[in-house]
Amino acid sequence: MQIEFCFEFASTYSYLSAMRLPAQAEASGVAVQWRPFLLGPIFSAQGWDTSPFNIYAAKGNYMWRDVARRENRFGLAIHRPDPFPQNGLLAARIAQLLPQGPENVTFCQNVYLAQFAEKQDISDPDVLTACALGAGLPAEVVDQAQSDENKHALRLNTEEAAKRGLFGAPSFTVGSELFWGDDRLEDALDWAVKHG
Amino acid sequence: MQIEFCFEFASTYSYLSAMRLPAQAEASGVAVQWRPFLLGPIFSAQGWDTSPFNIYAAKGNYMWRDVARRENRFGLAIHRPDPFPQNGLLAARIAQLLPQGPENVTFCQNVYLAQFAEKQDISDPDVLTACALGAGLPAEVVDQAQSDENKHALRLNTEEAAKRGLFGAPSFTVGSELFWGDDRLEDALDWAVKHG
Repeated sequence: MQIEFCFEFASTYSYLSAMRLPAQAEASGVAVQWRPFLLGPIFSAQGWDTSPFNIYAAKGNYMWRDVARRENRFGLAIHRPDPFPQNGLLAARIAQLLPQGPENVTFCQNVYLAQFAEKQDISDPDVLTACALGAGLPAEVVDQAQSDENKHALRLNTEEAAKRGLFGAPSFTVGSELFWGDDRLEDALDWAVKHG
Repeated sequence: MQIEFCFEFASTYSYLSAMRLPAQAEASGVAVQWRPFLLGPIFSAQGWDTSPFNIYAAKGNYMWRDVARRENRFGLAIHRPDPFPQNGLLAARIAQLLPQGPENVTFCQNVYLAQFAEKQDISDPDVLTACALGAGLPAEVVDQAQSDENKHALRLNTEEAAKRGLFGAPSFTVGSELFWGDDRLEDALDWAVKHG
């Protein structure tokens, strides 16, 4: 049984899922593939040049309140980054480079915590280096992630996400079955257990 | 303890909530005010001339699949109306006219079932007359709903919804606390029990 966790580093609800998923997946006996992708090109194809939470003010106001309620429930801190959304491109490239495994998961969680709990700038290579070192990874991954080959791999990942019908983050896939949103995390795991 | 259930007749997720809410609210001991409103003017203010599920194809495809999964879970039939979205204006005017109470709830559920379970046209006064009669209401409510005073009341309801930050349906409010989506129904009831 396996699910793919498709996430964007700048996404508030992806943060909640990234922190909650490992323990829940383990309890369900479901393996997780972590797949970073970029919402920028997907939003751009919909005619948006920033997060819809910025474009549609009522929706944005609601999101921050909804995330705050969920943060309380899950015991996670969340502060609004400035600017929002952050530029998660380099972080996504690093996550793309790393093999699946606990270091990758810890790196991703470190990036989310740096951004949403500590209000750090996750486009800053020094911040990402600290996230990598904190996950037991060598500092070199930050430079290695900038290779043309790895940039291309992340681009392909994003194109494939769009082809598979993804339009927001987080998204969970079990085969061709798509679940969107942190509030579908449990549904996705249930689906993997029953049909995966 | 009280919540307001703010719904649009053309909305798929409002249908799910309209069918699920009465039993759950009763089990929680929470009173529900049913408040119809119109998404058309709210979407229009966001620059949309139809449902975002039609404008954004990937989101629309996902919605129909997500709703189908939830329909299976809740034991509700849902067929895609043609056209989608339906014109729920007259139905909303009737719901606006009716006092709170079991006839109103049954009328609203009848409209949702006519639309999503039986693929009937809910802009058709004959369909709505049958929905009213089925709820023990006189056929005259269909004409009475078209009074200038009642039209105005629904318009005010929609304007007030926008002022209160509503941007989609269903929405649940507990005082100034807003919950959006059928998947927040349980959260809204919990909030009403704890804070209402």
